[in-house]
Amino acid sequence: MIDQSKLPLREEFFECADHRCVAEAIKTMRIRGAPAIGVAAAFGIALGARNSSAGTSSELIREIEVIAEILSKTRPTAVNLFWAIERMKRAVFDHKDLEVEQLKSLLEREAIFIAREDAETCRRMGVHGSILIEDGDNILTHCNAGALATTEYGTALGVVRAAHGQGKRVHVYADETRPLLQGARLTAWELMKEDIPVTLITDSMAGFLMSRGRVDKVLVGADRIASNGDTANKIGTYTLAVLAKENEIPLYVVAPMSTIDFNIFSGEEIVIEERDSKEVTRICGKRIAPEAVPVFNPAFDVMPNRYITAIVTEKGIARGPYAESLRNLLSRQEAGGKL
Amino acid sequence: MIDQSKLPLREEFFECADHRCVAEAIKTMRIRGAPAIGVAAAFGIALGARNSSAGTSSELIREIEVIAEILSKTRPTAVNLFWAIERMKRAVFDHKDLEVEQLKSLLEREAIFIAREDAETCRRMGVHGSILIEDGDNILTHCNAGALATTEYGTALGVVRAAHGQGKRVHVYADETRPLLQGARLTAWELMKEDIPVTLITDSMAGFLMSRGRVDKVLVGADRIASNGDTANKIGTYTLAVLAKENEIPLYVVAPMSTIDFNIFSGEEIVIEERDSKEVTRICGKRIAPEAVPVFNPAFDVMPNRYITAIVTEKGIARGPYAESLRNLLSRQEAGGKL
Repeated sequence: MIDQSKLPLREEFFECADHRCVAEAIKTMRIRGAPAIGVAAAFGIALGARNSSAGTSSELIREIEVIAEILSKTRPTAVNLFWAIERMKRAVFDHKDLEVEQLKSLLEREAIFIAREDAETCRRMGVHGSILIEDGDNILTHCNAGALATTEYGTALGVVRAAHGQGKRVHVYADETRPLLQGARLTAWELMKEDIPVTLITDSMAGFLMSRGRVDKVLVGADRIASNGDTANKIGTYTLAVLAKENEIPLYVVAPMSTIDFNIFSGEEIVIEERDSKEVTRICGKRIAPEAVPVFNPAFDVMPNRYITAIVTEKGIARGPYAESLRNLLSRQEAGGKL
Repeated sequence: MIDQSKLPLREEFFECADHRCVAEAIKTMRIRGAPAIGVAAAFGIALGARNSSAGTSSELIREIEVIAEILSKTRPTAVNLFWAIERMKRAVFDHKDLEVEQLKSLLEREAIFIAREDAETCRRMGVHGSILIEDGDNILTHCNAGALATTEYGTALGVVRAAHGQGKRVHVYADETRPLLQGARLTAWELMKEDIPVTLITDSMAGFLMSRGRVDKVLVGADRIASNGDTANKIGTYTLAVLAKENEIPLYVVAPMSTIDFNIFSGEEIVIEERDSKEVTRICGKRIAPEAVPVFNPAFDVMPNRYITAIVTEKGIARGPYAESLRNLLSRQEAGGKL
């Protein structure tokens, strides 16, 4: 995996030989992005199984449950993590009759399949979402919902990529996204690599740009979408939603179906991860605040569904009321089309 | 002056022996805060006059005009700078008949008087504004509108100080205020010194706190207030205003009368300073973004008057419509009272 904590200063890759390494990489955000951590967790389980010395299938299955538990404790908000872990577990439970080696191969294939599927899903979201983008659009985005946050291509940035590929002239304003600066470090880096015009701003500048008519659309990813459309995403997204509403700018969420948590009704049920205060008081190891200052550091916030113009998935575009439209997408067999 | 660019890591003072040093300190933000740079500019002119070898009053006055011009070119948005420079120039023009040495003394006394008046003004704003603060309030603030931004005591933080001094339990959420982190570096430091409870957050977290009912009031300073009440303040303030409105939280601007620019009708006439892109791409000298990334770095934004619940000045509290109430305050002779 590319070490996202080192970008953009160093483009370094690291390998994980076991599931503990994967769990640590997710926890410390060397890998991040809801779809990407789902894929990583799937490979974590496959690795854990491969390393097992279990003699019987039932012994291996018990070990896999422990491994799944470890991986599910890494980060609480992004549902793709739990979705991928559940899917890997289901693959096992559906084939309990297999031999140990067969089970191990099955898990490896399933992880590879999840990764390929994620890449394909991103391209489909790109195709669907690009309909919403017009030639000349200035698009504001937050955090990194790009190739780095997925297997490849990206969610919100996948839509930008698709529109750019169709020859539409697009320009992206990238919020730097404090505290961990995924916008400055990752989104800016990714877009520059693709030659898509980008301008970096601090999070506090988005409102000013909107008030001056310099933003046509807001595109963000998601870490968890409740069945009523309420969306948890990187801290600061709620603020963009309120600003977009006030300035009558459409805001689109771009996320795969695996980000929708049909087990919860609304955003109030979403657990918000709080992270270490040092993420706020230090930047790149340098202290920027008084030593003992109390800090509040939530990693996500929740955007109520009324702020969201549409949700773009690989199965099509959903509009409010989302409790109905998201459920309809779920039951749709074919990809493509517009609700 | 205390070197604000070094805080909170080092509490260092520096002295200026001439007006060029003062101009440089304002430009590089070793001294910042609308009232503070006004006071600094006044002393800059007094220093420039003292250093002059002009033989006649008219020669000295010509030199003072050049010095005033240099100081007025340092930063464009905060009007207190121009207000203080104008006041110093007026002192000279009103006493053209004085001898060179008398003029020099006059300017020194006027600068000292402006500084003392600023401190007194802050205390009066504190008294007026503290009426608005209730026991147990959670107050959100942005940038640094404290003692460091003034001669002493502060504007928005002066109100907090006054309420705290009256025994009201107040707690402050301090936005870190990217790019230059005045909230993390200065506001947190100042409040901790005063034993006023403070919690540091990134700018993107204010909306989340408001949406969860954890903010009772928003208090900010101002760099320039148009005669209709539109207010320019540190970039990010407009965002807080929109968030506060959406969550029905009162937002108060605390600023001396010298911050009100009666020469302009609305905020559209306010020049917004754009600063070096390195403020965004580097933090404490460390690069956090791709080398050549384009950056937009406005230092201020403008909050339309409709977002402002009240404006607290040393002459009392103004409420909308501000074109009328601010003009009424101006003509008020006595300080105190409520419009």
